[in-house]
Amino acid sequence: MATPSATAADPVALAAELIRAPSVTPRSAGALELVAGRLEAAGYRVERLTFETGGIPIPNLYARIGTDSPNLCFAGHVDVVPEGDTAQWAHGPFAGTVQDGVLYGRGAVDMKGAVAAFLAAALAHGKPARGSLSFLITGDEEGPALDGTVQVVEWLKAKGETIDHCVLGEPTNPDALGDAFKVGRRGSLSGIITVKGVQGHVAYPHLADNPVPRLVKLVAALTAAPLDEGSDFFPPSNLEVVSVDVGNPVFNLIPAQATARFNVRFNDRFSLESLKGEIVRRLDTAGAAYALDFQPGASQSFLTAPGPFTDLVADAVEAVTGRRPEPSTSGGTSDARFIKDLCPVVEFGLVGRTMHKVDEATPVADVHALTAIYGRIIARYFATFA
Amino acid sequence: MATPSATAADPVALAAELIRAPSVTPRSAGALELVAGRLEAAGYRVERLTFETGGIPIPNLYARIGTDSPNLCFAGHVDVVPEGDTAQWAHGPFAGTVQDGVLYGRGAVDMKGAVAAFLAAALAHGKPARGSLSFLITGDEEGPALDGTVQVVEWLKAKGETIDHCVLGEPTNPDALGDAFKVGRRGSLSGIITVKGVQGHVAYPHLADNPVPRLVKLVAALTAAPLDEGSDFFPPSNLEVVSVDVGNPVFNLIPAQATARFNVRFNDRFSLESLKGEIVRRLDTAGAAYALDFQPGASQSFLTAPGPFTDLVADAVEAVTGRRPEPSTSGGTSDARFIKDLCPVVEFGLVGRTMHKVDEATPVADVHALTAIYGRIIARYFATFA
Repeated sequence: MATPSATAADPVALAAELIRAPSVTPRSAGALELVAGRLEAAGYRVERLTFETGGIPIPNLYARIGTDSPNLCFAGHVDVVPEGDTAQWAHGPFAGTVQDGVLYGRGAVDMKGAVAAFLAAALAHGKPARGSLSFLITGDEEGPALDGTVQVVEWLKAKGETIDHCVLGEPTNPDALGDAFKVGRRGSLSGIITVKGVQGHVAYPHLADNPVPRLVKLVAALTAAPLDEGSDFFPPSNLEVVSVDVGNPVFNLIPAQATARFNVRFNDRFSLESLKGEIVRRLDTAGAAYALDFQPGASQSFLTAPGPFTDLVADAVEAVTGRRPEPSTSGGTSDARFIKDLCPVVEFGLVGRTMHKVDEATPVADVHALTAIYGRIIARYFATFA
Repeated sequence: MATPSATAADPVALAAELIRAPSVTPRSAGALELVAGRLEAAGYRVERLTFETGGIPIPNLYARIGTDSPNLCFAGHVDVVPEGDTAQWAHGPFAGTVQDGVLYGRGAVDMKGAVAAFLAAALAHGKPARGSLSFLITGDEEGPALDGTVQVVEWLKAKGETIDHCVLGEPTNPDALGDAFKVGRRGSLSGIITVKGVQGHVAYPHLADNPVPRLVKLVAALTAAPLDEGSDFFPPSNLEVVSVDVGNPVFNLIPAQATARFNVRFNDRFSLESLKGEIVRRLDTAGAAYALDFQPGASQSFLTAPGPFTDLVADAVEAVTGRRPEPSTSGGTSDARFIKDLCPVVEFGLVGRTMHKVDEATPVADVHALTAIYGRIIARYFATFA
């Protein structure tokens, strides 16, 4: 049996309080401290973890209540993307205003609303009778992500800390709460193709060597056919050439160099290595010399296989919303790409439609419903796995 | 019979004096005034023509001695390209140094040396017994060329002035005096291809529309085959895509626009209009929407057909150098593209190897030989056409 905590909180008030801490990445502005304070007050052992490999100290925390297995972790971030032009907002981006049943503010859905919902659900549940509840909260998700979850995961591994299952609170619903939950993410690989030539005057092409036709051939070879048709749980892998550049401002000069930049979002039909091999194979068919530089920060795809844990999450969503969420692997990357090295991870949060936009907002009802879903996940988790 | 002038001059001393006037385009720095003064002293009627459609007043001159036909004109420019880093020069770029039989300085071959040679030859020849000698000298050839020969030609047309034949003093010899003279020039046409798309995140390609693959198809269609195989007097027309640009600095964004810039140097198999038609025809085969903007300043190709005038010039070169020059139409454009609207024009000057480079230089012997060639052209011209 759980021990309900005296510190149980209203998730909407908590979300508004978090929004009022203007934690535009990489600043914490009190947001992480607010979460830490609530968890400490509820009896969690809170580890404050500051990393600064990127040159700026970034606070993170790992907090746990209970010492035995299984350990269910909620992961999230309190940093937010910049507010942009404040004048464009109908409600102050850091005011945490509630009007007509809608909570406004930067981070309302991505993802202070979800952090508040899980915090409220965990505080309401209290210390599990058997097993542990934990939080992995970072301040570096929207930034370079060098000193956030990736570092906490390393710290956890070094410490020998075991997390058995994880729920990440990213906004996973395209339109309405209950649409979808994420059971994996595609990998991401970026590269730059460089073609060298010999500069010269256009009137004397025999004295020059234009790299542009070769770059065009290479790009055509790279994009000639789809990478695959998708897999059981993933959409097709997709390559986009996002830039081609020479930067020659005049018409009478044949340039010395041309580059193309590309990104691939790829599914579980490829490993990073097999994808790199396929890219080289395609480029080599163009019959043109090139240099290829894969960029750092590439990630593998991953999948949390369907099973009791994914069923438990889907059941909780269905119980509260009346809708069974679609298991999804679409969209961008998330910190789940780091956590998957520790344990199975699924993602479920608010409705993402306004994320990163002016007047980011969530219905108050969704925050309450999400709190109920998280509460149900916590309760069913220990009933199932403990 | 000609009346030899008392003002006959040493062409090397005259070239050195011109080099010492640092007339980096658009400045005249006394160079045009020096030519005007010599011509006035020799009895030429000198018209000083200042144009400033480009915003800076540029001096030019048209000078003539004699009133009857035929009128043989020497055309040239006294402006020079910038000297660049003076420290790289073994001899000061504006010192007009002669050492070991070589005249050094910016403009030595392009084309103060040729202006001095023609001036010396004309002054030595004096007023023609029948016919006229004239000079069309500009200060805007190396710059935008808005207020140079193009304007003088318009002024001459408006005035009803007749020029029967013209010799332009551009450096036409690749390696040694007598290699080649120009009897035409290719045309030049530049354009920009723009492809629009819809910006978006690479993880959601269905919400975006990447313009890069369409640009690549268009460039491939444009460059799929040679434009032609050349013609009797011209090398093949040649199209170079000199730049492709998106300017997207990140890997996770599908861009909204992509552009390609191209230039065509084309022979007499195309008119400007037929070339534009061919470009549109090729682009249309790509099956991709695009915008095409042809740039201002395009020029037609032209040819001075072989005949008594071109023979006369080639004979004079052969008589002095012992080598028959090749009639050529290769290379870039020149002010001949404007003069060809007035009369047949051929180009012959010094050896171009050092033009626009550090330590631009010409053998003193070449300046003397060129003076002799020009002198022979003048003498034979009036013997043949007057």
